[in-house]
Amino acid sequence: MSVLIVGSTALDSIKTPDAVNPRLLGGSASYASVAASFFAPVKMVGVVGEDFPKPYLQLYRKHKIDLEGLQIVAGKTFHWAGEYEVNMNNRRTLETELGVFESFTPHLPKAYQDSQFVLLANIAPSLQHHVLEQMRRPKFVVADTMDLWLNIALPDLLKLLRRVDGFVLNESEAQQLTQEHNLIRAAKKIHRLGPKYVIVKKGEHGAILSTRENLFVAPAFPLDRVVDPTGAGDCFVGGMMGYLSTAKGSIDANLRKAMVYGSVVASFCCEGFGLKSLTRTTRVAIDRRMKILETLIRF
Amino acid sequence: MSVLIVGSTALDSIKTPDAVNPRLLGGSASYASVAASFFAPVKMVGVVGEDFPKPYLQLYRKHKIDLEGLQIVAGKTFHWAGEYEVNMNNRRTLETELGVFESFTPHLPKAYQDSQFVLLANIAPSLQHHVLEQMRRPKFVVADTMDLWLNIALPDLLKLLRRVDGFVLNESEAQQLTQEHNLIRAAKKIHRLGPKYVIVKKGEHGAILSTRENLFVAPAFPLDRVVDPTGAGDCFVGGMMGYLSTAKGSIDANLRKAMVYGSVVASFCCEGFGLKSLTRTTRVAIDRRMKILETLIRF
Repeated sequence: MSVLIVGSTALDSIKTPDAVNPRLLGGSASYASVAASFFAPVKMVGVVGEDFPKPYLQLYRKHKIDLEGLQIVAGKTFHWAGEYEVNMNNRRTLETELGVFESFTPHLPKAYQDSQFVLLANIAPSLQHHVLEQMRRPKFVVADTMDLWLNIALPDLLKLLRRVDGFVLNESEAQQLTQEHNLIRAAKKIHRLGPKYVIVKKGEHGAILSTRENLFVAPAFPLDRVVDPTGAGDCFVGGMMGYLSTAKGSIDANLRKAMVYGSVVASFCCEGFGLKSLTRTTRVAIDRRMKILETLIRF
Repeated sequence: MSVLIVGSTALDSIKTPDAVNPRLLGGSASYASVAASFFAPVKMVGVVGEDFPKPYLQLYRKHKIDLEGLQIVAGKTFHWAGEYEVNMNNRRTLETELGVFESFTPHLPKAYQDSQFVLLANIAPSLQHHVLEQMRRPKFVVADTMDLWLNIALPDLLKLLRRVDGFVLNESEAQQLTQEHNLIRAAKKIHRLGPKYVIVKKGEHGAILSTRENLFVAPAFPLDRVVDPTGAGDCFVGGMMGYLSTAKGSIDANLRKAMVYGSVVASFCCEGFGLKSLTRTTRVAIDRRMKILETLIRF
């Protein structure tokens, strides 16, 4: 089954202590779509400007990402510039140019509207909402977010949460949203806002899944070299949804393994700038890393 | 088999956002010994002053901790006062009175010198070293430490590392010791300093074990309420050594499970001030939590 992914499509200029990489392919939809493509066909919804480099369209195509939902419009592609500190955990935004993103309204081609697995990757909650309005009866909808939307679009986000099955956010966002430092209690509070599945991303420490009945502690794949963590969270959720859309059986039966697949795909993402490393990997390499991860946590 | 544990024995005054608890039983040896006592007989080496409350001696005895190595001398017991921030992760020291600790030299009773499993809990590295000098041929020696010793006694610590099998430290200490942000690479550097087993504690995120051959990612037991994390790291390593000393087979075959037992024991510690919660638990409750933890990480 295919996955519908809506989110940002951007050019990222990323500075780390070791290197500077201008205008890489970025954006939550790009990362999540490439991540999901290792498991399932992907339909992507986004917008880019006329300056969007052709090789990046080819990269999407290499991953068999359906681009009917990608609008190419007059103007400049969304551009983000950021810089990482030495520890690669803290980053600061140097520049944001919204470009064509400013007036973006996601429009779903007819062929997209029946999608069963929908990932509302990080983008303004009102746009995530607008996508759902155009869907018929999706089986499983997951939304990701970022701190920006908690700060400037909380009412929209809360409205969205009543309509999604799963919600993905990171530790500090969970704490901010719930005013609760303890993650288990924070997740329980988020259930009350709507989502049946609450997934808290903890970066290099893995992730937790909370359902109303139980908890799952997902490991991260330990890396001895992190080149660029940009997009790792998007790849996590993209890989998770990609695997989930192809797995036989219920969501509950497959979500744990899907999260671990997401972790593994995210680990490949961190090993290169932007999507450079992830686009070079294969399903075989991903499965190999899954097997290794199983041995790393066995006791 | 019994475990020999040397470390600090103290009175801790602990302030959290919710409560103030003066003069609790504390110190690395106290925490580690109680933790180990659920698995094996413990021989404890430490020092307290004449002001040391009788009920605390009774608590040691309740856990069948052999106190022949506990010196009770004229003067005041080591006292530490600290305060936790709201998130319960950051703490600051309000006061430290060394008391009888200032002139402490650990002296091993004859019956202790043949011990096979030795835990050099957090204490000055020169004292840890002095304990090893008095041992015959221990089978497995693990040292814990803290940032203070990296700052003021690094040469002693480096000398100690050449003589221990395992070394336990937390994330920031590993980074400080090796000048390496990535924990996997930091652990590899620490192997070169001597220890075959390097264990990096990550608090609520669990721990990793690095050997020259492979890696183990140990989960923490997720808690929805942390009352006081003081001593959790000591309980982790105490529980680990306690289990290890009774497990049949090689260290390599048992160390992973021992670490998870350590995590579980540490989780009980965090649920009450000082040792209040841990001292009330049982091996049955610990085993029950082990089983739960196994289900929480299964995928």
